[in-house]
Amino acid sequence: MNAEIISVGTELLLGHIVDTHAATMGRILAECGVTCTHRQTVGDNLERVVGAISDAFDRSKIVVTIGGLGPTEDDLTRDAIAKALDDELVHEPSVEEGLRAYMKTRRIEWQDSLRRQAARPSSGRIIANPNGSAPGLICEKNGKVVVALPGPKGEFEPMARGPVREFLATMSGGEKIVSRTLRICGVGESHVEAMLGDLMHSSNPTIAPYAHLGEVHLRLTTKAPQAEAELEIAAMERRIRATLGDLIFGADETTLEAAVLELLKQRNETVATAESITGGGVGERLTSVPGSSGSYLGGVVTYNSDAKRRLLGLDEVLLRAHGPVSRETAAAMASGIRDRLEATFGIGITGNAGPTSDVDGKPVGLVMVAIAGSKGIEISENQYRGTRDDIRRRASQEALVLLRSILLN
Amino acid sequence: MNAEIISVGTELLLGHIVDTHAATMGRILAECGVTCTHRQTVGDNLERVVGAISDAFDRSKIVVTIGGLGPTEDDLTRDAIAKALDDELVHEPSVEEGLRAYMKTRRIEWQDSLRRQAARPSSGRIIANPNGSAPGLICEKNGKVVVALPGPKGEFEPMARGPVREFLATMSGGEKIVSRTLRICGVGESHVEAMLGDLMHSSNPTIAPYAHLGEVHLRLTTKAPQAEAELEIAAMERRIRATLGDLIFGADETTLEAAVLELLKQRNETVATAESITGGGVGERLTSVPGSSGSYLGGVVTYNSDAKRRLLGLDEVLLRAHGPVSRETAAAMASGIRDRLEATFGIGITGNAGPTSDVDGKPVGLVMVAIAGSKGIEISENQYRGTRDDIRRRASQEALVLLRSILLN
Repeated sequence: MNAEIISVGTELLLGHIVDTHAATMGRILAECGVTCTHRQTVGDNLERVVGAISDAFDRSKIVVTIGGLGPTEDDLTRDAIAKALDDELVHEPSVEEGLRAYMKTRRIEWQDSLRRQAARPSSGRIIANPNGSAPGLICEKNGKVVVALPGPKGEFEPMARGPVREFLATMSGGEKIVSRTLRICGVGESHVEAMLGDLMHSSNPTIAPYAHLGEVHLRLTTKAPQAEAELEIAAMERRIRATLGDLIFGADETTLEAAVLELLKQRNETVATAESITGGGVGERLTSVPGSSGSYLGGVVTYNSDAKRRLLGLDEVLLRAHGPVSRETAAAMASGIRDRLEATFGIGITGNAGPTSDVDGKPVGLVMVAIAGSKGIEISENQYRGTRDDIRRRASQEALVLLRSILLN
Repeated sequence: MNAEIISVGTELLLGHIVDTHAATMGRILAECGVTCTHRQTVGDNLERVVGAISDAFDRSKIVVTIGGLGPTEDDLTRDAIAKALDDELVHEPSVEEGLRAYMKTRRIEWQDSLRRQAARPSSGRIIANPNGSAPGLICEKNGKVVVALPGPKGEFEPMARGPVREFLATMSGGEKIVSRTLRICGVGESHVEAMLGDLMHSSNPTIAPYAHLGEVHLRLTTKAPQAEAELEIAAMERRIRATLGDLIFGADETTLEAAVLELLKQRNETVATAESITGGGVGERLTSVPGSSGSYLGGVVTYNSDAKRRLLGLDEVLLRAHGPVSRETAAAMASGIRDRLEATFGIGITGNAGPTSDVDGKPVGLVMVAIAGSKGIEISENQYRGTRDDIRRRASQEALVLLRSILLN
């Protein structure tokens, strides 16, 4: 069964936004065993959206639209679907009620323009949107199907991965494209490829490596009836794990922070953070994991030397002697926060993210990560390249990689 | 003059790669004054690529293809362009020479399959590729134009921003598309539209609203000779600012955190953070801005009650009486960190990000933000919906919005 994706939005054509949703939808279609042969992007223009839907129907049974369901006048997807299907737009009172309640909880005054979002093409049914105002749509008419999803990420993703995925899986039946991603940290892509050798050329499942900031993801993919596909993927995963071992920190959506927290939980141990260069980024990552409060106690953001003294009691003489970006300061931050919160491990991170060299002349990209534990302090000294953002993300990544390696040894 | 972009690659349809090149090309077309009305993505399939080019020519004069120029058998774009233009493929000996020399420097053995890359449609001319093997193409026939670019990022970007951009600018002559984005916080999209009324329907410059998490962005766009376009944009910006005033916190790439830091800097004031639900996210945002250390002093992440006591000296009795998610705790966090770091303002944030209600039964999405200053403590109580991530991002957004409104009043 074939499907096409139509992304609606002038901002996409102008390149102001990168179309990540289309990629997400592509993966979901593949996982459901639906073949996506074509994708279109059109601006907020009724005629062009109608044209895109009609062209898509010449080639495919299913059309998935993304965006253009909001309350404003350039949100035209609902109208375009109705026109392409030769439907009327019908007002759905229950949706208006929900919208009014939603606006009330958000303390947004009701505007009559919001009513637009309560309309549906007559052959369509509503997909509830618990995360925003515009509901989604599933329209079925004359053997054709249109699925319409809202554009905002927080609304698109749960709807696409939830009810829409379920609907598409039911429609397709039979063969599935099954994928599994193994996540690796601490080594580069070429190193992983060299370790795996010929295994990388496997044709079933196929293995595709993707390099991310400080991680390598291996994507295993196969197409077969569900049970068979899962067996093939599991067998390949075992072979890869036999070679890579602990370099794999998790699978699929498991983040490095979740993997580290899981190790801490198993050991009944805790961690606390003292961050300078990352400004709270490590704490933010750790607390993004539900239930993290059992293992992550908290920490301090000591963005200037005064804060390092006041919040961690760091010694004036030490700070003067070595400067804020030094192995000594990182180590003192790590043990300082470990002591204050009585954590098993204390993380200290300091460095210079740029764009210019700091006062004591330390180069941009120099990052010190220290981890204090019962057996002493481990320090990792790094010189990164890239933007301010890159350097800060590499710094928080290194903190988690180092803590994981200490936990495993 | 209209153009369309065609991205070629099955990996794009499967969602294994996000199509950033199409966004880059969209920006380049706009900068050159060429209107992009449509984008397509097709897999590595000769018939579909030919079909996409023909469809595009029905609507537009210019087609820009990206990808599918490599040496392997699924690189079919050259063949597809020749077929769509009814051209022969001609071998270009100078390109083969260049390819052989390139492979030699890379110490890659010559394969006869590499010869494919030395072919061009008979109406085409070669764009040299100093960064890889596959050259680009510009084909002009019967008033239609195809520009073909290679897919690898290191080859695509310099070619697109260099010779292709120059060619497109020459073709279009004169007119440019100029855009400016005004960023608004503290009110919703429909509210902004209601305030602006008829201005929203301006046809020159056009005004398009985009809703982001806790922000609305208004994009002003016009097409005219550069100087004229800039005047038109500036005039419209003045009209919008006259209506929205302080609701606009910045323009183009200015983030809310940068705008808040700028206000603090102007006033020679400072801020410190005490974060629970956001786990360091506010500190992370503030320190993402270069030079933030002048106004952001640092803070604490007090992810459990014990950390609130140890790092902020919060009173056991108060915590017990009101619970960690309460107006009283948020206020105590805000004044606690303000005192400890002697900051002008202290931010305290506490809440329940879910996925389950916390121990003292506070609902998921309940977030208290308190800001302590010399005139007392302001508290904002919010009930958010959405994922754990959404709730946490809305919480950090609210902290910055509230601080900004205090700074402005």
